[in-house]
Amino acid sequence: MSMATSQGTNKKSRIAILGTGVMGTAITQIYQKAGYKPVVWNRTLSKTKPLTDAGSDLATTVSEAITAGDLIISAVASYENLTEMLKNVQISGQGKILVNICSGTPEQARAFGTFIASKNITYLDAAAMSGVKRVGDPEGLFLYSGDYSNFMKAEPLLKILGKAKYLGSDYGLTPLYDTALFTMAWGGLMGFYHASALIASENIDVNDFAQIASGHTPFLNSLFKEHARAIGEGKYPNEDGNVEVHAAAMQYVVDVSRDKGLKADFPLLISGILNKSKEAGLGGNGIASVIEMIKNHG
Amino acid sequence: MSMATSQGTNKKSRIAILGTGVMGTAITQIYQKAGYKPVVWNRTLSKTKPLTDAGSDLATTVSEAITAGDLIISAVASYENLTEMLKNVQISGQGKILVNICSGTPEQARAFGTFIASKNITYLDAAAMSGVKRVGDPEGLFLYSGDYSNFMKAEPLLKILGKAKYLGSDYGLTPLYDTALFTMAWGGLMGFYHASALIASENIDVNDFAQIASGHTPFLNSLFKEHARAIGEGKYPNEDGNVEVHAAAMQYVVDVSRDKGLKADFPLLISGILNKSKEAGLGGNGIASVIEMIKNHG
Repeated sequence: MSMATSQGTNKKSRIAILGTGVMGTAITQIYQKAGYKPVVWNRTLSKTKPLTDAGSDLATTVSEAITAGDLIISAVASYENLTEMLKNVQISGQGKILVNICSGTPEQARAFGTFIASKNITYLDAAAMSGVKRVGDPEGLFLYSGDYSNFMKAEPLLKILGKAKYLGSDYGLTPLYDTALFTMAWGGLMGFYHASALIASENIDVNDFAQIASGHTPFLNSLFKEHARAIGEGKYPNEDGNVEVHAAAMQYVVDVSRDKGLKADFPLLISGILNKSKEAGLGGNGIASVIEMIKNHG
Repeated sequence: MSMATSQGTNKKSRIAILGTGVMGTAITQIYQKAGYKPVVWNRTLSKTKPLTDAGSDLATTVSEAITAGDLIISAVASYENLTEMLKNVQISGQGKILVNICSGTPEQARAFGTFIASKNITYLDAAAMSGVKRVGDPEGLFLYSGDYSNFMKAEPLLKILGKAKYLGSDYGLTPLYDTALFTMAWGGLMGFYHASALIASENIDVNDFAQIASGHTPFLNSLFKEHARAIGEGKYPNEDGNVEVHAAAMQYVVDVSRDKGLKADFPLLISGILNKSKEAGLGGNGIASVIEMIKNHG
């Protein structure tokens, strides 16, 4: 496969896109912009029209798309859909790499990897972590797992879509990290929304708060790294304050929230977990020890 | 007051520290390290010994400390404690600035501001946002509110403690931001802990995950800024996915967490709020619209 040369991207590489929903469309447009002529397929062929009008080629069947592509990017909804699409397709996959961006479980990714190996197509499991809007943005994050040498082959083309982070050979790593990062991001957002409600209750501009909150995430990053080490070692130093101190502070957030007429579900959840940790005898430990309450030992 | 010159910090400024618990001790040590000779006071005088042994001067009364100090930093536990300490003190506060680092409500900060004005002492309300460990670290964040010209006078000395962020003249801004940033940070941590539990359930190193999670916070920052704009305008564009799509994805996190034997309280809380938003007819809106569920209109 001549997907890329050591000099960079070989513009003769052909990119096929399976599924032209919002993600597939964004991906196709980025490759068009970068000077490629993608081949697009969609279950409802008419939905590819904006892309073919803009210069992409139409594949009328999945097998036509795969035959045309060196790099095949699937942006259909699920592993089931993709398996169904590929099941009865007769193709020579030799030298082709299929990159599949859909959400699912590690088990589904691994099972799909086994299935696709039977088609003689090289596989990379992928996830777009920064949403459709940031496709093509160098700061947008994409995750990949599968054979490293195949990732290296595809990387020059994948970097056109955004930051390309390789996780390891196990296909299951991408869905696992996808779920974990989604959960982490929602924690940050939920905290930000509750904080914004507190700020807004005093008629302060939430845009000003967002600036300061953004300036505070490097602190959060340093806690992630320190607390990961603590979690890995199963020992929780309390230099960022112990569970007991944080439980009291979070109870205070609950009280202030209620005073302001806000629903306190979010700080209540955290104070509940901190209180459970206290009851479990972890009150003097660092706050990362609350992971023991999530791990459900009891 | 000759606290600082336009050339920088005037080493002749005298710093008084009220309360030498962990925070007051860390602050005193940083000023000692920077070449100052602080004056320290603590309710239990013997607790100042490590600091006076290291070269700080002892004030045996609060009034002695305030008389000695140009900049007085209080690190006692509460507004009540500080008010009690100062109530019967006869001092000439002219030209002195009191910086008070304690947690409390905006109302307490404002009431304390009124009280301290009667003592003729200029006041800045303060909060240490990055914990004791990062006192003296240029990346450690301190918040201040009060009269801007007084903040400017004190700033060269305050910058020795860390990043000095001025919020505005209303004393209540510091406690409000303190509570909001604490809530935001706990959201990020809770998300990170749950995510780490998912990662650990597949025997993947959480330190590797922390690296990738840290690399993902610039994305979170851009969401903070965009969603703050949406919250400010009360219009929620769904370009990061709508409430309905996120509700389904969060239900999936709940399911995976349970499959892995984890307690799903955290993803359940978020999926509950997303589902309430859906029921309230906000399913097609952007996810920042969940703030309407916190604002308790129903």
